[in-house]
Amino acid sequence: MFRDYDIHTDLALEDKERFESDNVEISGVSVEEFVDEEREIRVTEVKILTENGAKSMKKPIGTYITMEMANLVLPDEEYHHEVAKELAKHIGGVLKLDKTDYTALVVGLGNRDVTPDALGPHTIECLNVTRHIVREYGKYAVEEKTQMVSAIAPGVMAQTGMESYEIIKGIVDTIEADVVFVVDALAARNTKRLNRTIQIADTGIHPGSGVGNHRNEISKETLGVPVIAIGVPTVVDAATIVRDTMENLVSSLDNNDKYEIMQDLIAPHLYGMFVTPKDIDESIDRIGATIAEGLNILFSQET
Amino acid sequence: MFRDYDIHTDLALEDKERFESDNVEISGVSVEEFVDEEREIRVTEVKILTENGAKSMKKPIGTYITMEMANLVLPDEEYHHEVAKELAKHIGGVLKLDKTDYTALVVGLGNRDVTPDALGPHTIECLNVTRHIVREYGKYAVEEKTQMVSAIAPGVMAQTGMESYEIIKGIVDTIEADVVFVVDALAARNTKRLNRTIQIADTGIHPGSGVGNHRNEISKETLGVPVIAIGVPTVVDAATIVRDTMENLVSSLDNNDKYEIMQDLIAPHLYGMFVTPKDIDESIDRIGATIAEGLNILFSQET
Amino acid sequence: MFRDYDIHTDLALEDKERFESDNVEISGVSVEEFVDEEREIRVTEVKILTENGAKSMKKPIGTYITMEMANLVLPDEEYHHEVAKELAKHIGGVLKLDKTDYTALVVGLGNRDVTPDALGPHTIECLNVTRHIVREYGKYAVEEKTQMVSAIAPGVMAQTGMESYEIIKGIVDTIEADVVFVVDALAARNTKRLNRTIQIADTGIHPGSGVGNHRNEISKETLGVPVIAIGVPTVVDAATIVRDTMENLVSSLDNNDKYEIMQDLIAPHLYGMFVTPKDIDESIDRIGATIAEGLNILFSQET
Amino acid sequence: MFRDYDIHTDLALEDKERFESDNVEISGVSVEEFVDEEREIRVTEVKILTENGAKSMKKPIGTYITMEMANLVLPDEEYHHEVAKELAKHIGGVLKLDKTDYTALVVGLGNRDVTPDALGPHTIECLNVTRHIVREYGKYAVEEKTQMVSAIAPGVMAQTGMESYEIIKGIVDTIEADVVFVVDALAARNTKRLNRTIQIADTGIHPGSGVGNHRNEISKETLGVPVIAIGVPTVVDAATIVRDTMENLVSSLDNNDKYEIMQDLIAPHLYGMFVTPKDIDESIDRIGATIAEGLNILFSQET
Repeated sequence: MFRDYDIHTDLALEDKERFESDNVEISGVSVEEFVDEEREIRVTEVKILTENGAKSMKKPIGTYITMEMANLVLPDEEYHHEVAKELAKHIGGVLKLDKTDYTALVVGLGNRDVTPDALGPHTIECLNVTRHIVREYGKYAVEEKTQMVSAIAPGVMAQTGMESYEIIKGIVDTIEADVVFVVDALAARNTKRLNRTIQIADTGIHPGSGVGNHRNEISKETLGVPVIAIGVPTVVDAATIVRDTMENLVSSLDNNDKYEIMQDLIAPHLYGMFVTPKDIDESIDRIGATIAEGLNILFSQET
Repeated sequence: MFRDYDIHTDLALEDKERFESDNVEISGVSVEEFVDEEREIRVTEVKILTENGAKSMKKPIGTYITMEMANLVLPDEEYHHEVAKELAKHIGGVLKLDKTDYTALVVGLGNRDVTPDALGPHTIECLNVTRHIVREYGKYAVEEKTQMVSAIAPGVMAQTGMESYEIIKGIVDTIEADVVFVVDALAARNTKRLNRTIQIADTGIHPGSGVGNHRNEISKETLGVPVIAIGVPTVVDAATIVRDTMENLVSSLDNNDKYEIMQDLIAPHLYGMFVTPKDIDESIDRIGATIAEGLNILFSQET
Repeated sequence: MFRDYDIHTDLALEDKERFESDNVEISGVSVEEFVDEEREIRVTEVKILTENGAKSMKKPIGTYITMEMANLVLPDEEYHHEVAKELAKHIGGVLKLDKTDYTALVVGLGNRDVTPDALGPHTIECLNVTRHIVREYGKYAVEEKTQMVSAIAPGVMAQTGMESYEIIKGIVDTIEADVVFVVDALAARNTKRLNRTIQIADTGIHPGSGVGNHRNEISKETLGVPVIAIGVPTVVDAATIVRDTMENLVSSLDNNDKYEIMQDLIAPHLYGMFVTPKDIDESIDRIGATIAEGLNILFSQET
Repeated sequence: MFRDYDIHTDLALEDKERFESDNVEISGVSVEEFVDEEREIRVTEVKILTENGAKSMKKPIGTYITMEMANLVLPDEEYHHEVAKELAKHIGGVLKLDKTDYTALVVGLGNRDVTPDALGPHTIECLNVTRHIVREYGKYAVEEKTQMVSAIAPGVMAQTGMESYEIIKGIVDTIEADVVFVVDALAARNTKRLNRTIQIADTGIHPGSGVGNHRNEISKETLGVPVIAIGVPTVVDAATIVRDTMENLVSSLDNNDKYEIMQDLIAPHLYGMFVTPKDIDESIDRIGATIAEGLNILFSQET
């Protein structure tokens, strides 16, 4: 779900890189990296451990796992199966529930009528929804064991007049969900990451700065149950790519001057615009199906 | 939203006709009819006044207004504007709120991926949703006065794992809705009615018999606020048309025999099938837009 | 693509059964049947060999292969892979080209906005289209060898104002296609067959009686290249199910009387209506993908 | 239909502005401007009269009419009716046919699965298609007089394996079309123009430079009948907005240096990306309907 914020990134990985480029260690933030050479998946785990780290990263305390896969854009079915299994493993890793049988609500955020924002709704379409079957016939009614899985694509505020939070809140209470998974299209800073990265965060979704203001959060604080966010960057804010390109050019200028010059140069009509690849329709189809498969694997695991 | 019930009709008008054919007056039920000759709209108001009437009609106590318009299937834009105005008038007539400014939730029931069931979701797409704007800028922010209108198309149980009721309940509480409008595709008994009839009921939606069991109702009893149901028959159960045709044939037989013969003859695989016209895609587009226009008119009226 | 004909079946298998029920051998028609017990696929090959046979069957001379699979409606991915392989084998069997490298045009007939008619367009969406790549980079540019595959979903006459034939004819000439594959949703006589049967015919598509009148045919006669038709029954004409059910009832009557009685009983508004299952959206998705996979296998086979 | 060219504009108006900024008069090009103050529509007519002018403008000889309307993005139904009438007038102006009754083919270019590219297909959905009715019942069969209107949304090469030209060419011949109208989403240089401008050109569609190479043109040269192109800019190439912003910054540098610096700075992964507004889904719906209405008015005019 694309928001009308200032230039920003939804990826903790990119926040971290911002600091790295200045050779700064960030206190309260730990970073670990694994590379699966064979499958060409690079996994980075960023843990924000303290309030200080949260302030630096402009993201709340929690664990952020990023899977980077250059091949995610390719139409290779086998590869997508492998990614789905890896995804199930990492989501399972951050999912800390004190029960083995649970009710899950999977939320597909975004606008199904805007291609790069349709990732969440498309994932929901590919998901094995089972709650109504388990309720009627028990948890072994479907071929293999399954959790009680329910799903909703609530739409965006321009369509509903409501914050996503307002729609989800009541559902979580009514169906007594034990955990919420939120699938969403993200904004990145760098077009190279588009449709090649999956971020898993145990912190939910925090519109805005992510620190302080809880209004409209989709998180444990507001819903009362753990919220796992699964996001894929599918767009870059148009103003971001202009700013970034220019930074190279004006890097010799004084920092304050630089900011002012760039603010002047970025035409105001660039805000509200986004950048996305031309083959975005195929990427959305493929990645949405892969995330759904990852969740399907997770939900049918014997625990 | 098509349900897997026995052969049935969602139209109070057709329940009434069932009795008329037997020349029976139904106690506890009043019927009034108006014909707008010029615009060729026939309006029937069925009021179920007593528990007795409710039992006979297999529908709860309340007011059911049916607008019948043979021309509703035609692509005549002017005519659809007239129908929208008439619809706004009748919905306004059954809407009894003790405040002039209210928050409305419009629910588009049904499966957007099954053409004749997509009426509700399509209506939502054409609706002027304003709650988020009024909250931010006040009720005269949009061109003319408007109520606070929010909307949701929750999807069907096979997609969500949840009853529509479970999804709506929490939203009504969270946004403090004063009234709920539910738009839904209905099943009729008679193919002649398909896409030519709009039913407005102040009783909400009652899956099943509509009497006694409140489970999964979308009604004042379960939501705590008035629920206006707006429905258009877009399908007939396949078994119904077989049964009805045969009734003509075997009308001379004893009633009990007749029932058994017919039960035997209707192949079991006919259940779960529906009948719908071949041009259903165009009808859904046109009628969904017309209902949305009717609601838009209602919500922007000075009161 | 559903046509406004009299009650009819598009399945040669059902024409054959019509005669069988009367215990009649049809001259000029041969029938062979194979059952794949393990995978529960029944394959029937009906060959219409003479003009006489064509008249009896109301279908042109040619080979009609029917795959019947009760499990085709199930969401079993492994099974659908098996069906795709079997399908590729049977299509390969009727495909008699005198070259090993060819240009194929796959046509997805039907209306994407009417769920049970969307099979053809949906198949096209799942197909590996390669002509533009092979033209630019050669036939080994894509991972494995491939034929030059192009595809079009022309829409229906109400959307285009043209017969499908008129749209396809020029394309076949312009791109010098060697063979045309037409994927289409069919009408069956029996609801038990819906979404469980795939018919392959080397005769193309013959709206109407299929004998004599070539107007609007999509066939070798009109296009100049072989036309393989791949069809799945997804609807039954509403009048058909009424007529069939009644036939059981009135089977004792004289044949001529029977016809008249039934014609009177079938209300005229039933024509233009179709019957289809409630879960048609999922079936269309699944079977369309399976047919596309069958074609993808066929087109990437080393020959 | 977005093409993978170098940074470019599809708008003659913007080519002209390029020169104006250098205060250069272009020989062989005439420009006239009208402003409809009341309806806030600015109409610019650029006529490229000579081969010289064509070379300067990188567009073929012909007439290019641009309607600029800041309010086109607003959901004002009345205003869109006015725009539709104005559009019908301007299209009628460039349409020079020597018959009063003609067969028109309207082609909706673009990918219906990528929101900003779906303008052409969406326009086709809103169009009154009449050829099949007129053929059967005569030209007064529909309410008012109508031309024979047919339509097709051929899809994009990644979906079909064919150039749009290859699909259209044969259809024009088969149905003996007298004129082709091509509706397409365009790329502009300036985000301020997006969804606010309609360009009408009597030159058809010229992928690439538009001069010399006729391969894949959709034009009178290749189809044999007049081709009127109707385009709306809905995206800007991502590289363009970076380049333009930087030009302001580096305007003091020598021209050759400038080009090289910028080429270096624009990251290669920006090519293949586009910029589009966040509310693109609503704009596409609204403008597609308006263009269809303009064509509907044109086709039903008494001549």
